Amino acid sequence: MTFFDQLKPNAEGLIPAIIQEQSTGRVLMMAWMNRASLDKTLATGKTHFWSRSRQKFWMKGETSGHTQQVQDVAFDCDGDTLLIQVEQIGAACHEGYQSCFYRSVRESGAAVEITEPRLEDPEKIYGKPA
Amino acid sequence: MTFFDQLKPNAEGLIPAIIQEQSTGRVLMMAWMNRASLDKTLATGKTHFWSRSRQKFWMKGETSGHTQQVQDVAFDCDGDTLLIQVEQIGAACHEGYQSCFYRSVRESGAAVEITEPRLEDPEKIYGKPA
Repeated sequence: MTFFDQLKPNAEGLIPAIIQEQSTGRVLMMAWMNRASLDKTLATGKTHFWSRSRQKFWMKGETSGHTQQVQDVAFDCDGDTLLIQVEQIGAACHEGYQSCFYRSVRESGAAVEITEPRLEDPEKIYGKPA
Repeated sequence: MTFFDQLKPNAEGLIPAIIQEQSTGRVLMMAWMNRASLDKTLATGKTHFWSRSRQKFWMKGETSGHTQQVQDVAFDCDGDTLLIQVEQIGAACHEGYQSCFYRSVRESGAAVEITEPRLEDPEKIYGKPA
């Protein structure tokens, strides 16, 4: 029995993975894993996911070079969510921010605030959109 | 337009919410919110969710008293995940651990390890199962 067999993926065979930077505690992103991407993540020590929008297996950083080195893989009491500690190279967010969670709303009806500086220009990382 | 209208819930109208303890950086749990639970969370400052298994609106801590006081509500670049900073009363996990992510697997094929002490006896919090 593999580790994945102990988990409870959804009807599409996917499980959400929260990615946290171990050294800072910053939650960087959330993405989805299937069995192949979790197996590959454990075997290589680099995070791999399943893109629901592109229906594609992908390694974080395959285009940008901003890979994630896995430090620990935890799972929750219900077995339906992963929490993965990583060390992140560069910015985690494809928008150029350290974390994908760079916007907050403080209270009901309040305006959205940008809560961290943009570290990189996405066009320089991923190329200009056609 | 409410804050929820800026988000992209799934086909069931739900969005995953990662709950992080602001003072320690510990990720405590992940649960699902619908529009009503997010609105209630913002209005009251206490986390409210939608239980997919029980098909029920619930406030965290309504049985255990282990409520979560909201400090910040962030959302990701794709608008499909929330990251909520809280201060947690008592243990977050219904199994009596501080965090629901109390188990880890370090590498492919490795055994599962319990990574934190159990703080409370679930039977004392929720009552003995019948």
